[in-house]
Amino acid sequence: MFERIALVGIGLIGSSLARVIRRDGLAGTIAISTRSSSTLDQARELDLGDTYHLDPKDAVANADLVIVSVPVGSSGEVAKAIGPALKPGAILTDVGSTKASVIAQMAPEIPDGVHFIPGHPIAGTERSGPDAGFASLFENRWCILTPQAGADEAAVERLAEFWRRCGSNIDVMDPNHHDMVLAIVSHLPHIIAYNIVGTADDLEAVTKSEVIKYSASGFRDFTRLAASDPTMWRDVCLHNRDAILEMLARFSEDLASLQRAVRWGDGDKLFDLFTRTRAIRRSIIEAGQEVDAPDFGRQVVAHPEKA
Amino acid sequence: MFERIALVGIGLIGSSLARVIRRDGLAGTIAISTRSSSTLDQARELDLGDTYHLDPKDAVANADLVIVSVPVGSSGEVAKAIGPALKPGAILTDVGSTKASVIAQMAPEIPDGVHFIPGHPIAGTERSGPDAGFASLFENRWCILTPQAGADEAAVERLAEFWRRCGSNIDVMDPNHHDMVLAIVSHLPHIIAYNIVGTADDLEAVTKSEVIKYSASGFRDFTRLAASDPTMWRDVCLHNRDAILEMLARFSEDLASLQRAVRWGDGDKLFDLFTRTRAIRRSIIEAGQEVDAPDFGRQVVAHPEKA
Ligand SMILES: NC(=O)c1ccc[n+]([C@@H]2O[C@H](COP(=O)([O-])OP(=O)(O)OC[C@H]3O[C@@H](n4cnc5c(N)ncnc54)[C@H](OP(=O)(O)O)[C@@H]3O)[C@@H](O)[C@H]2O)c1
Ligand SMILES: NC(=O)c1ccc[n+]([C@@H]2O[C@H](COP(=O)([O-])OP(=O)(O)OC[C@H]3O[C@@H](n4cnc5c(N)ncnc54)[C@H](OP(=O)(O)O)[C@@H]3O)[C@@H](O)[C@H]2O)c1
Repeated sequence: MFERIALVGIGLIGSSLARVIRRDGLAGTIAISTRSSSTLDQARELDLGDTYHLDPKDAVANADLVIVSVPVGSSGEVAKAIGPALKPGAILTDVGSTKASVIAQMAPEIPDGVHFIPGHPIAGTERSGPDAGFASLFENRWCILTPQAGADEAAVERLAEFWRRCGSNIDVMDPNHHDMVLAIVSHLPHIIAYNIVGTADDLEAVTKSEVIKYSASGFRDFTRLAASDPTMWRDVCLHNRDAILEMLARFSEDLASLQRAVRWGDGDKLFDLFTRTRAIRRSIIEAGQEVDAPDFGRQVVAHPEKA
Repeated sequence: MFERIALVGIGLIGSSLARVIRRDGLAGTIAISTRSSSTLDQARELDLGDTYHLDPKDAVANADLVIVSVPVGSSGEVAKAIGPALKPGAILTDVGSTKASVIAQMAPEIPDGVHFIPGHPIAGTERSGPDAGFASLFENRWCILTPQAGADEAAVERLAEFWRRCGSNIDVMDPNHHDMVLAIVSHLPHIIAYNIVGTADDLEAVTKSEVIKYSASGFRDFTRLAASDPTMWRDVCLHNRDAILEMLARFSEDLASLQRAVRWGDGDKLFDLFTRTRAIRRSIIEAGQEVDAPDFGRQVVAHPEKA
């Protein structure tokens, strides 16, 4: 599909891309760049690409597709570094979990004639680094593209086709709407999971070993999310602040009302909420989103190539 | 092990007990009782027992082990109904998710000479009813017993042995401590899951179909808990009120502080929390509680006998 694809950042997402590009022959050459020489060495040992570069400029020179896969707080820095080296006509995209902030950081650094089309594959696990990736990560997952007004349609379609070849379905969306949707389906769940695990960690009356021993009764489901990469999630919180604060405010308001129902023994109110929420679960099952291996992050560890 | 076991309540837990008792020959006779004739008919069609009774008194008469498996809010009513019919020397236990309240409700109704030993198997799924059960539900799970001071040691050991034969490990605990531990490892996670699904359900800016479509990115993990039985969870909230309010207060306090860190861009604070929570996940994995099919509720649907 492309002569040369440059991957800037080669963690979970970057290395999964490298694997699927290689497996399905989506590029003539894969050029890999990352910040640290230790990660670059790891990528080389895993044989993820054809050329390896500590300076991202060297990777992106002559690339017709550049994919930036770094924590969203580093997007601006990376864009500044690679901007001058980008080839006219090249497509530049990213995979960051927030979009408005990434666009604000990167767009000013991109020279005219380069097609900057931000993206976000809705696929991941709680693991990170080049050895965490696998070629099937994007299969049957959504990839959201948030092209800016006036973006070149052929370039957008070409990038969409690339993601389809990686196994994904494409949605196109306004960046602010993306950030609102992801705040509720992904960012709030992660923040809540981190918070509840933190609360449990602080208890004096219940020992840590008790929490661990009986974790199968509900708590455990939260610990997987709360084991996700701290840098990535710090950056998500800092870079999707407004949408996250909005969702947190609504969540806390609802929780205060639920807490009041518990305090005053309002069984009908509790029963109504607990009944209403079942419908969403049914819809997820009906939409086929309730796949057999929903907790794919965990299953990957056991069957790297089947997840 | 027992001549006659009476199961009062034949939903997920009761019917799982019936299946393992039958499979492993733990009783000469299994007597089943439930409130409604439709559930009793279901149990009969599933061939879960030997005798079927709408009046629980008929089931418990002559039973040497009686297991009450009904929502915790109905424990008192059931104890009142069966109390006069219990055989001297019989063991009476329950499986309720809260313990202090169940003891307060049931103990006054139990005649002298009957060994009342409350229990709670830490095993379950989000499904309910007699067809949701399966024989291996209790395998490699903990079962907590909360005998009262002065309980007959031989009777406690006999009940413990019964649970071991069902595949469980036994812990003995004070009822109030049980309620505190379960509030953090099970009740709070369920309440939080119900709450976040409710918050998402109320949004106007994000459509329901978007929530469902992108649910794999975190939200989905909460919907399974939030699909649990409304009656059971209403009763848990009403009957473990104090411990739940205590955990909710701590959780909300912590969330307010996290929210403040998001608002003021305190990246170090976020990073510290997100790092600290990883350790708990590691401990769960090290403790072997991170089994391959942790989401056993879901997997049961696909492989009822393997979960
Ligand atoms: N993980 C998920 O579930 C998921 C899902 C969808 C989207 N995303 C998004 O994908 C992006 C990458 O996530 P990931 O999970 O692949 O992360 P990862 O496994 O931690 O890898 C991060 C990569 O970015 C590099 N990097 C880190 N800080 C950098 C900096 N300040 N400047 C330049 N490079 C830097 C790292 O380089 P060194 O190792 O050399 O330092 C590494 O190559 C993030 O924007 C994230 O929001 C993640
Ligand atoms: N589900 C879990 O994950 C789990 C785990 C550990 C412990 N527990 C505890 O186990 C107990 C039973 O839960 P379950 O999941 O088996 O529930 P379930 O599947 O909903 O079954 C409940 C049973 O209790 C009967 N029942 C309901 N209300 C009653 C009432 N007012 N009076 C008399 N009987 C009544 C039902 O009878 P009819 O159908 O005939 O009305 C049914 O036989 C609860 O105390 C729960 O806290 C549950």
